Amino acid sequence: MIFDFFSEIKTELSVVEDELKNAVKSSDPLLTETATHLINAGGKRLRPAFCLLGGKFYNFNMDKLVPIAVALELIHMASLVHDDVVDSSLTRRGIPTVRAKWGNRISTHIGDYLLGKSLILISRYEEPLIPRVLADTSVKMSEGEILQISTTYNTDQNIKDYFYRINRKTALLISASCQLGAVACGAPQHLHQSLRRFGHHIGMAFQITDDILDMTAEQIKLGKPVGGDLRQGIITLPTIYALKESSDRNRLHEIIQKIDKSEEEVHEAIDLITRCGGIEYSAAIANQYIAKAKKELTKLPDVPVKKTMQIIADFIGVRKF
Amino acid sequence: MIFDFFSEIKTELSVVEDELKNAVKSSDPLLTETATHLINAGGKRLRPAFCLLGGKFYNFNMDKLVPIAVALELIHMASLVHDDVVDSSLTRRGIPTVRAKWGNRISTHIGDYLLGKSLILISRYEEPLIPRVLADTSVKMSEGEILQISTTYNTDQNIKDYFYRINRKTALLISASCQLGAVACGAPQHLHQSLRRFGHHIGMAFQITDDILDMTAEQIKLGKPVGGDLRQGIITLPTIYALKESSDRNRLHEIIQKIDKSEEEVHEAIDLITRCGGIEYSAAIANQYIAKAKKELTKLPDVPVKKTMQIIADFIGVRKF
Repeated sequence: MIFDFFSEIKTELSVVEDELKNAVKSSDPLLTETATHLINAGGKRLRPAFCLLGGKFYNFNMDKLVPIAVALELIHMASLVHDDVVDSSLTRRGIPTVRAKWGNRISTHIGDYLLGKSLILISRYEEPLIPRVLADTSVKMSEGEILQISTTYNTDQNIKDYFYRINRKTALLISASCQLGAVACGAPQHLHQSLRRFGHHIGMAFQITDDILDMTAEQIKLGKPVGGDLRQGIITLPTIYALKESSDRNRLHEIIQKIDKSEEEVHEAIDLITRCGGIEYSAAIANQYIAKAKKELTKLPDVPVKKTMQIIADFIGVRKF
Repeated sequence: MIFDFFSEIKTELSVVEDELKNAVKSSDPLLTETATHLINAGGKRLRPAFCLLGGKFYNFNMDKLVPIAVALELIHMASLVHDDVVDSSLTRRGIPTVRAKWGNRISTHIGDYLLGKSLILISRYEEPLIPRVLADTSVKMSEGEILQISTTYNTDQNIKDYFYRINRKTALLISASCQLGAVACGAPQHLHQSLRRFGHHIGMAFQITDDILDMTAEQIKLGKPVGGDLRQGIITLPTIYALKESSDRNRLHEIIQKIDKSEEEVHEAIDLITRCGGIEYSAAIANQYIAKAKKELTKLPDVPVKKTMQIIADFIGVRKF
């Protein structure tokens, strides 16, 4: 497990893990197989962890926390699966090959199935804030995804556009995770709102760091080729900065807009971005969010997990994977 | 408007239509455009209509009915959009699908967006039965879709498998529509359960008729090529019957299992199915469901729309489009 600092909630997280497996069981063998495969593929379980940690701030109660913790991970998994749906170029006479078609079919319906299962869990709660926050988050997550698609290769984006997009894509669900654990345990508004803000700052820092790592990490640690965003035309913070500040911004612009980039061109673009300070600038922005998150923590009651949340905040600022 | 017998709720349906348009508005222009395209592509609005009719049986209240009526149509639309992703359909009701116009990725996210919007509407209700029924229905709809994928080209399916599948694919949401209109208006259990059963029978008859029309309708009325199910390897009731009863069942089996069928082969298969009585048999089964639906209606209080629901039941048994 990568995130050792979840050791305080290790037992609770393993309960969530078991319930996650139970939640996706179906009488349909294909469905059980694919959903189980997804779960076993792992993931940091960041959202359930934040949910449980949030619950530690007020009348921690696992019966109340487990369904929402599982639901949050299911929503996250569904969004990842739907993200995998691609416009396959593997077509013959305008019709996708069986292989390409099968992949998309499974991805779409498995995603819907996971979302449906999360709804079943959410519908157990009488507190109306839980479905409301998650409904709002779902809508905005979809908006973020569509915005990412429609702004691909668009070099006119500014920092504000980027923040708007990553808030929807990532920060909102992390924010909801921090908030709703406390809500499920019956926490008062000032407490769960404070956790929500903490989650927002952490979520923003997390995505900015992710976007930095997409350019700087070693391929083996990233688990995918470096420069994936650039290849797909996704404009992230380091690129936005470099498009404005680099002396070679015309060349960078030219590479970014190419649909088919060579390995050399991707590395040339990363090099241009790095040399003009795009990585450092982005890391500084991430660190500003970390600082805001830690400041928000000072408003929260002094419970043992508060230290853990500080460590998580620091870790997100320096993580290498 | 095809379904003239909704004239009794014409004004109410136009309110739902306006709210449907409002519900999908977004600050993102692409999102507003695609969602509006979907709504303007039309549809029978069968689910909102059933929901409103259900409400007519108990303290009819539009404030309580509109959000759930809109939510039901959004869930239906989301399932159609996601269906278009997987089936590679380029037209629906004679109009280009979102996928054909904007691609698979957009379709997936538009579907999620519509689902999210339906959740926002559902989260307004305090009655826990509404989210619970819809969550359960969503999961089962996905199960039905995945079952349809995993049983494609599988000629071993029996009638029971078919009923299980179309219940999930179609009948459950129609059933929920009939039930939840009454639930939203505060109807007692025996009433909304009776409406639920009515909806189940109507929904089953509706899908069986749809599957018959896929073989018998003129292309212009269907808005898509005849024999689409056979082409895609989807085994429906007339085919299941013919695979058992036709003297040419070996030839039928052979055609069905071909991935690339010629026009002639599709028409040969339809001819084989028709000649052995597969269409008549399926129509008889649909009519049994209609009869059950009408019998269920006799248990319901005598309100004016009851007559309308009888006419709808009869219409589904004989519809040509």
